[in-house]
Amino acid sequence: MPVGAALWRSLRAHQVYGANTDVGKTIVSTILCNAVNQRKSEEKSAFLKPVSTGPLDEADDRHLRRYAPNTLTKCLFQFDEPTSPHIAAQKKKATIPRDDDILASVHKTLSGWAGSGISFALVETAGGVHSPGPNGLSQADLYRPLRLPIILVADSRLGGISSSISAYESLLIRGYDVQSVLLFRDDYYQNHEYLGDYFREKGIPLLPLPPPPRRPQSQDTDSQERDREALYNYYSIVAGGSDVVSLLDELNVKNEQRLYSLEEMAGRAQKTIWYPFTQHHGMAPKDITPIDSAHDDFFQTYVAPENPSQQGNLQATFDGSASWWTQGLGHGNPGLALSAAYAAGRYGHVMFPGNVHEPALALAEQLLQTVGNPRLQRVFYTDNGSTGMEVALKMSLRATCDRYGWDATMEQINILGLKGSYHGDTIGVMDCSEPSTYNQRVEWYRGRGHWFDFPVVKMSNGVWRVEIPELLRETLGEDQEFRSLGSVFDVERRVRSGAGECYRKYILDTIENLVLQRGMKFGALIMEPIILGAGGMLFCDPLFQRCLSDVVRGNPQLFNQAKPAEPDPQTELSWSGLPIVFDEVFTGLYRLGRRSSASFLGVNPDIAVNAKLLTGGLVPLCTTLASEEIFAAFSSPEKKDALLHGHSYTAHAVGCQVAVDSLQAMNRLDENGSWNEFKNDWKEHSTDDGLRPQEVWSVWSHGLVSDLSHAESVDGVFAIGTVLSITLKDAGGAGYTSTAAKGLQARLAAGGPQFNVHSRVLGNVLYLMSSVTSKKETLREIETLLREALL
Amino acid sequence: MPVGAALWRSLRAHQVYGANTDVGKTIVSTILCNAVNQRKSEEKSAFLKPVSTGPLDEADDRHLRRYAPNTLTKCLFQFDEPTSPHIAAQKKKATIPRDDDILASVHKTLSGWAGSGISFALVETAGGVHSPGPNGLSQADLYRPLRLPIILVADSRLGGISSSISAYESLLIRGYDVQSVLLFRDDYYQNHEYLGDYFREKGIPLLPLPPPPRRPQSQDTDSQERDREALYNYYSIVAGGSDVVSLLDELNVKNEQRLYSLEEMAGRAQKTIWYPFTQHHGMAPKDITPIDSAHDDFFQTYVAPENPSQQGNLQATFDGSASWWTQGLGHGNPGLALSAAYAAGRYGHVMFPGNVHEPALALAEQLLQTVGNPRLQRVFYTDNGSTGMEVALKMSLRATCDRYGWDATMEQINILGLKGSYHGDTIGVMDCSEPSTYNQRVEWYRGRGHWFDFPVVKMSNGVWRVEIPELLRETLGEDQEFRSLGSVFDVERRVRSGAGECYRKYILDTIENLVLQRGMKFGALIMEPIILGAGGMLFCDPLFQRCLSDVVRGNPQLFNQAKPAEPDPQTELSWSGLPIVFDEVFTGLYRLGRRSSASFLGVNPDIAVNAKLLTGGLVPLCTTLASEEIFAAFSSPEKKDALLHGHSYTAHAVGCQVAVDSLQAMNRLDENGSWNEFKNDWKEHSTDDGLRPQEVWSVWSHGLVSDLSHAESVDGVFAIGTVLSITLKDAGGAGYTSTAAKGLQARLAAGGPQFNVHSRVLGNVLYLMSSVTSKKETLREIETLLREALL
Repeated sequence: MPVGAALWRSLRAHQVYGANTDVGKTIVSTILCNAVNQRKSEEKSAFLKPVSTGPLDEADDRHLRRYAPNTLTKCLFQFDEPTSPHIAAQKKKATIPRDDDILASVHKTLSGWAGSGISFALVETAGGVHSPGPNGLSQADLYRPLRLPIILVADSRLGGISSSISAYESLLIRGYDVQSVLLFRDDYYQNHEYLGDYFREKGIPLLPLPPPPRRPQSQDTDSQERDREALYNYYSIVAGGSDVVSLLDELNVKNEQRLYSLEEMAGRAQKTIWYPFTQHHGMAPKDITPIDSAHDDFFQTYVAPENPSQQGNLQATFDGSASWWTQGLGHGNPGLALSAAYAAGRYGHVMFPGNVHEPALALAEQLLQTVGNPRLQRVFYTDNGSTGMEVALKMSLRATCDRYGWDATMEQINILGLKGSYHGDTIGVMDCSEPSTYNQRVEWYRGRGHWFDFPVVKMSNGVWRVEIPELLRETLGEDQEFRSLGSVFDVERRVRSGAGECYRKYILDTIENLVLQRGMKFGALIMEPIILGAGGMLFCDPLFQRCLSDVVRGNPQLFNQAKPAEPDPQTELSWSGLPIVFDEVFTGLYRLGRRSSASFLGVNPDIAVNAKLLTGGLVPLCTTLASEEIFAAFSSPEKKDALLHGHSYTAHAVGCQVAVDSLQAMNRLDENGSWNEFKNDWKEHSTDDGLRPQEVWSVWSHGLVSDLSHAESVDGVFAIGTVLSITLKDAGGAGYTSTAAKGLQARLAAGGPQFNVHSRVLGNVLYLMSSVTSKKETLREIETLLREALL
Repeated sequence: MPVGAALWRSLRAHQVYGANTDVGKTIVSTILCNAVNQRKSEEKSAFLKPVSTGPLDEADDRHLRRYAPNTLTKCLFQFDEPTSPHIAAQKKKATIPRDDDILASVHKTLSGWAGSGISFALVETAGGVHSPGPNGLSQADLYRPLRLPIILVADSRLGGISSSISAYESLLIRGYDVQSVLLFRDDYYQNHEYLGDYFREKGIPLLPLPPPPRRPQSQDTDSQERDREALYNYYSIVAGGSDVVSLLDELNVKNEQRLYSLEEMAGRAQKTIWYPFTQHHGMAPKDITPIDSAHDDFFQTYVAPENPSQQGNLQATFDGSASWWTQGLGHGNPGLALSAAYAAGRYGHVMFPGNVHEPALALAEQLLQTVGNPRLQRVFYTDNGSTGMEVALKMSLRATCDRYGWDATMEQINILGLKGSYHGDTIGVMDCSEPSTYNQRVEWYRGRGHWFDFPVVKMSNGVWRVEIPELLRETLGEDQEFRSLGSVFDVERRVRSGAGECYRKYILDTIENLVLQRGMKFGALIMEPIILGAGGMLFCDPLFQRCLSDVVRGNPQLFNQAKPAEPDPQTELSWSGLPIVFDEVFTGLYRLGRRSSASFLGVNPDIAVNAKLLTGGLVPLCTTLASEEIFAAFSSPEKKDALLHGHSYTAHAVGCQVAVDSLQAMNRLDENGSWNEFKNDWKEHSTDDGLRPQEVWSVWSHGLVSDLSHAESVDGVFAIGTVLSITLKDAGGAGYTSTAAKGLQARLAAGGPQFNVHSRVLGNVLYLMSSVTSKKETLREIETLLREALL
């Protein structure tokens, strides 16, 4: 379970990291605590050693108790072996504390101190920044959720410049803020000079301290006594030094500034930012949530105090929209941060046309393999789903006009699609959707196409149902019920059923009518497989999408009776009727539990677009995959016939490298059976009913879906892959402008004992979306919240 | 001057870095060299210590000479002090070698070895990865241009896990490939166990070595002799070990793989990649350049051998298109790599609507301040110039239709622009340009606007000239000549001249005619200030753009005679006539030497779009800045009236953080006078001629521009900021499909003694573009190439 990031107004808490082991972290801590204690009577310091190794009487908290007697000290876990905690923990037969428990324990301790008059606390790590914790995880990763501001103790020895800077970089990669650097002065190596300049340039103060007295050489009582005396002396002098005092002041100011900045961010944002998809009218700062940082599935959001005398704090908030459907491998993923940094360090961005670099090539090859559609042979890079779909549109229109010999300057070429589709915000792809709230106020919008009504899948009252739209009941018959979601997906059998026949006839008649009666010309079939996201999480009956594809491919004569150009007989991969474009920007790459959402339909599109999860959720990148035949439509001796499209940062190395590593990580999760527990849960509810239930599963439990489907306020619910969608009944009519889901959204935002839940609504639909690495306990905690809210 | 990255087929060269000082780099080097020497008779090893500190008789190359006597050894720079090279260098009164010289020297040494039968070479660093070189630059940064594959010697002591991983991370951030990790086995701390697992997961083999015999304790000759004996013994046993031999094999394979991969990349790319703006017809692998890496202004490009028996190599190639006009702070910039990693580690990407995070807010505020246009108050984020311009278009059309009460569903609203404009590849903004090669084959393209012919600025035969288009000679008069480019930019005086009057009359008459005679309605004036980039580097007379703005703003009655809505009299910042949109995607943020290119015109647009240089050249990001009044046009109690536009990765933290740091870095260069030398060069050629020459300058020398303008093959030339543009005479007619510049491009690609030059052409125009940190020597070297090619 997540912890809130550690931030309090009354308590300045810092984590002390060392550039290496034995650089004097504990001495620095003792100096700082003494300085605090000496400064003002109302100041109280505390020292926390979460994990300590080595003999008890040499333990760091003991040192503090002796030499900073007014400081409260605590050690959470003590191992006797003077070695790295992960080895010490193995040797000690006692139970090793779980990382989550260590984190919770640190947070609880600091919280307690914040509430009991402690004004300054240090949390001291063991060894260097990457020294392993008791379970082997590097400390820098282990403590990251707390994101305490860092006091880095640099190394004053030979080689210490290097280890100090590397340690700093390792902290930076994990999104830590290093607030000050301290080290002992060594006038021969002068590391403090070099490092002072280095850190000054980064706005981080560095304080050189006088070296402590030498360690006891002899063990006799007298000399031990003298050594102690010397050390007491040292602390009393150094802790009272004006530079140490001003450092404390500076740390104090930084803590204030961090809080102040969090407090005023929303107000400043409201003045300056023009938010996407946001009506600013009536918007107040309270409607904007400051995000201090994020880790794994959780934002650290700032919660303003009810009244100014109280302190605001940071809360863990589940990112329930997967940050607009992008998240796959968790926020603040250090592996992806390193991938990004590696590509940035190796290339920056390099010009793509005429060149090739490893990340772009590796991603192209890997992606084609991952998607596994034999038609798709070519990769075109753009920056986001919208631009990728513009490219797909240009590709398909050209291929069609070429084959059918149409002159697009003389007549309008349309697209075939589904009602409620959404392919992006640029005007070209807006024209690919029917008139709706999204585009009706865009002055240059001109919908160019025909969009089918379609049957939707949902569970209501415990039954999986394919719901036929009112208008089509006469043609397509009544709603159908299924024993399991897997059965709905037995497209291969259903396609030969009566429903399949109805669907095909309806589709064929419609197209015939559009072409023959209304003289429309079509250039592409464009669909979001399975779920139409922005349209309101519309779960389309996969059989309908399959039939639509079959009809288009099976009836090439439909689209140009004058010149019924047949597909190239040389290859079975040739497109037929119309190029089929799948917009998998949202639904692809494991969002629905499979590598491609096309695979649910048994349809291999001629063009497919992926984005969002492509980079695991880190940076924008999009790919438009196309068949060799589509590619060939742009080939000619004339430059002007080429696809003259390309953004400045096409195939930017950072995006490609991060995508290569994300794809590998996701494929590995798939192959390793990481989702088996979720899969088994759904398999259990997959009963044979004459259909062969396909493997369809969700991270959200089948039990939850079933339970919610009985709730009075719920019209229907479904889950697939990482997506859970709840459609609420709305007396005032459904749709994007409905407010029916606002209440549920507010309940989730208020959260439970562990965390809050951020969610997005689309009219009367509230959906939740996890990453592909979300933990079961987290998801089940959210399910509890949902049950409490709806049942 | 740049060096080629160090890669040879016959020579496996590696750089040995240590996780810290005193981890046994030299012992590891000695083992590996001995192992090579022992393995096969034809193998020969060499050892290079570029910079050595400490007494000569303890020097590392001495150690090699003694214990690996068959290894060729060399030390380039020796300092006696046993301290960090930057301190040793200061103490030694001798001249400190420049970093460039060290690099060149290393490259030359290795090159020589590669040509003389050496098959294995190690380049040993001093201290840890970030230990400073003689001039204070960290070694990891200093040696980066060579990008030698790394052998990392990890630290087996307590704390060594941490320092080893941090050192590895520091190398990764700089784009190095760590090919193997070695360390001494320590059975108490067992670092090799932990690190073995850690690096195995990253595909990097780790080899634990037996610890070397203890160092001599006594100084007497006998015991020294014994110690030597023990060490000889150690080396002979360890170097012959099968694991060391297989490591060598592995390194060998990796070197082969790297070369093989570089060789086959172009062929693989040709099969899989669909390149932007590229006609693939007739394209061969040789037309694709593999880029191994990039640093500063240079790509490391793979040059295939003339015949298969020769070895290909890596060459430094100047990135003369600034990678499609994006580059500002150099490729592989470690500061930006860290910025990216920090944001990735702190946030990943977090959902933007309804939230705010520090990088997005800081960038918004900083950008408004940098641009310094009092009209611009709001920041809307998108992913690239094209999407940012789509947003600008939506903003301006809405504002205009609202004020003028037009129903855009009933009639076409057009834009006013310039011929040759280009605003991106998405169809909406394609419609903002007149029909051209770029859009004529896009099926859904419908140009919606009027585009003015305009006078262009160029130098020909040593004279700055404003050239009036043929068709407008009658209206606008003859070409005008100027004593300096600065004079052309004295817009404030020229606006009151006869030319200004002519321009205004022509513009006014044209608009009147379009509106009154042809009934056109206009929604925005959209322009790229100063240079129309993709249109062919068309340098528009700034006076013309100024007059166009003045006429539009000064004649609001023009655009809606029925309802001549006046600007809001409450504010002088209200738009008038039409909203003015400046597309500064290419020309903004120092590309032309100033923060904004609008400032050259003395026009404050109502909407401005920035991208490309915004992130210093690292990742895609775009901002559309707008006035509060434009923003207000979307405000209403209805959600549907909001600007319903937004990409998944809107305001992604990585992009925003990198942009914040880039903007700061560029502003600092500006404020620090880093470009004064360039400015002074141009100032000298700025003579008073009745006009008040403005500060206009270029990194390209005025002398070069003047000289080239006399060349027989040159029609005209100009330079401004980082841009140099050369228009070649083309008997066959100018334009995008001209091939006149291909010859010059090939000459530059062949390069000079120091490096090659990659350039892009736009028809008969060849342009070169530097970053804002390009070094004068580099630029002048390129100028020499240009003179040789053209004069």
